[in-house]
Amino acid sequence: MTRFAKRIGGGINPAYGRIFAMFDQPGVISLGDGVPDASTFPAAELEKTTKEVFEDFKNDSSFTNKLFSYWESAGVPELVSVLEERYMGKFESGNPEKDTLLTFAGAQQVIDLAARVFLDPGDTIIVEENSYGGAITAFRSYEANVIGVATDEEGIVPEALEAALKADPNVKLIYTIATFSNPMGIETTLARRQAMYDLAVKYDVIILEDSPYFELRYSGEYIPSIKSLDKTGHVIFAGSLSKIVSPGVRLGFAIGSKEIMQVIGAEKDNQTIGNPGLIQLAVAKYLREYDLDAHIAEACDLYRKKRDAMLKALENELGGVASWTHPEGGFFLWLTLPEGVSGDEFSAYVAEQKKVIIYPGSMYRPDGKDINAVRLNFSVPTEEQIDECIKRIADGLREFMK
Amino acid sequence: MTRFAKRIGGGINPAYGRIFAMFDQPGVISLGDGVPDASTFPAAELEKTTKEVFEDFKNDSSFTNKLFSYWESAGVPELVSVLEERYMGKFESGNPEKDTLLTFAGAQQVIDLAARVFLDPGDTIIVEENSYGGAITAFRSYEANVIGVATDEEGIVPEALEAALKADPNVKLIYTIATFSNPMGIETTLARRQAMYDLAVKYDVIILEDSPYFELRYSGEYIPSIKSLDKTGHVIFAGSLSKIVSPGVRLGFAIGSKEIMQVIGAEKDNQTIGNPGLIQLAVAKYLREYDLDAHIAEACDLYRKKRDAMLKALENELGGVASWTHPEGGFFLWLTLPEGVSGDEFSAYVAEQKKVIIYPGSMYRPDGKDINAVRLNFSVPTEEQIDECIKRIADGLREFMK
Repeated sequence: MTRFAKRIGGGINPAYGRIFAMFDQPGVISLGDGVPDASTFPAAELEKTTKEVFEDFKNDSSFTNKLFSYWESAGVPELVSVLEERYMGKFESGNPEKDTLLTFAGAQQVIDLAARVFLDPGDTIIVEENSYGGAITAFRSYEANVIGVATDEEGIVPEALEAALKADPNVKLIYTIATFSNPMGIETTLARRQAMYDLAVKYDVIILEDSPYFELRYSGEYIPSIKSLDKTGHVIFAGSLSKIVSPGVRLGFAIGSKEIMQVIGAEKDNQTIGNPGLIQLAVAKYLREYDLDAHIAEACDLYRKKRDAMLKALENELGGVASWTHPEGGFFLWLTLPEGVSGDEFSAYVAEQKKVIIYPGSMYRPDGKDINAVRLNFSVPTEEQIDECIKRIADGLREFMK
Repeated sequence: MTRFAKRIGGGINPAYGRIFAMFDQPGVISLGDGVPDASTFPAAELEKTTKEVFEDFKNDSSFTNKLFSYWESAGVPELVSVLEERYMGKFESGNPEKDTLLTFAGAQQVIDLAARVFLDPGDTIIVEENSYGGAITAFRSYEANVIGVATDEEGIVPEALEAALKADPNVKLIYTIATFSNPMGIETTLARRQAMYDLAVKYDVIILEDSPYFELRYSGEYIPSIKSLDKTGHVIFAGSLSKIVSPGVRLGFAIGSKEIMQVIGAEKDNQTIGNPGLIQLAVAKYLREYDLDAHIAEACDLYRKKRDAMLKALENELGGVASWTHPEGGFFLWLTLPEGVSGDEFSAYVAEQKKVIIYPGSMYRPDGKDINAVRLNFSVPTEEQIDECIKRIADGLREFMK
């Protein structure tokens, strides 16, 4: 009888099991997972730069080492410098004199390692009331208490955050997806970002600002990152190339104080050592030689249409019945169902009866509470599929509420 | 003042600091790190297969997804199948009906995840008396007690292992590098492997068999893996392409019972999601289309010469003064210095005065005890460098002992 560590959870919510079981059934459309539209991947460009990397290094005596040896936590210099220019330079998320940028196997690894270096078992991490499930699970792997704090359309409510910080001396981290949050698609205002940072300094806790979506904006004005407000080294900014280049390159990065990043980098080496050199070099070349902003603008045109299609379909099909967020970017929208509707049961019903995959709100809550809300992804389905799905969801809701 | 988790250790041993400080100094030769000789990397072959992967998928509608989307813990089927054939088939390390093979970012990630899924804080993991430092550090990241058990040239001593298992009901894992161990270069005999397995079953603990070196044999006969003796699902076999293909592909794998691998795979997704699709596909194609055994035989010819050069130089320079292991494979040899010589101080002395990097025995011990032994790597230096280094080490020893 295999005895796993306590951090390994038991079975899953049966409603989730019913949803997952429908995934590969014929006729099923998914508004579930939050991945980019594969048509946005710069495949031809990455093919070109990958091939060029081999040629470029042909006359370089360090050829095989550069491409095929270990690259420890720092990452290939060519990649680090282009990321520094973009994220510490253009986007001001970090101060080159005080901060260090390191690369990781996606922002997911940053999330895991931040938990690892800051959280003792029993320590607390504060997250938005509804937050990214993959982060909540990673935090629990280090036996932390994960506490959701009241969050409205402007972000975490500062009074609620301060109350949580005051109540628990073992809070070590605040995890936030301040821009186009997963799962709600909301954006924390600049005033709330400042308030969150001020509280982090006051209570001396670290903010992990997970920002994989901020460059995917379809409307509204750029809001500076929390990291750009950081004068004291209390903020770690986690970024990712998964949504703007491709998830398959498995490259994310983090910017934090030199002291913090040295410790996180050492733990990265204990976990996976480095990222593959070839991919790092091919992506660095892509970022250096192609116009990433133009590529992102093109992706945004596609995603904007999909978002607008979803908002319009919701208005047509569920206006006056349900309410929803109006994301200015990212991949998700949060649909609040009529009072008393179980998000868990409704999602399972829609999967089984209407052949549409949606994920219930409980999946994003540290308390796992079954609430009357579901997350809808609009980045993957086509506009036609979005129309069809929202119709099926609306039909399903009418039937379900009978 | 940043407060890290307790698992984050304090400063390092000052002797190690003195050694590391010499690394990039002019004239310094390293017998320190244990990486492959870069001349063995099949760079031209991987260049060819990488380019072909792009062509192969040109007419495949899943092109961009296969290369650039997420690949979760399972890995690309093309890679999994070729690894299954080699390691579960040819080397019989796993039973396809009962076991699952998953891919990871090197065997390092398997080590980390095995600790994560089995060790609660305060649980115990047993390792060989001298063991891989990167594993010991990873185990401590999960706040485990790491206990070294008496090990002789035939492997872990079964009586000592049973005593340790009896004494501590919280032992959950036994970690072993049974073939060409890091740091000692020794090989556990078949009888000792069987004894270790029988004890694991008797006390119901899991063996993590870390085997990155077993295919690099320069003399002697193949000894079956502990996993090949496993009838009960008590063994996880961790393998790696780092030493036989290249570290930069960052691909390792693990074979374990379906139940265990399901849990480890889920935790992998929480940590890094998957490995890059492009690299997985290029390596799978390389393994399928080229003769890996011939490639390994060629690398072994190179490493055999280096090992022989080191053994000969030691005999010439230190015969009668010190003693050493006689590895039949792998990258390392363990040099025992005269009684009373501090491995820590001697290694620092040799780095500073003789410009040779060697790592002290204490670096490989869970108890960190300063012992009269050092690890010597022979995979990286040339035969000439090996001769020169052993001369310098012998000179250093004479001076140091005055």
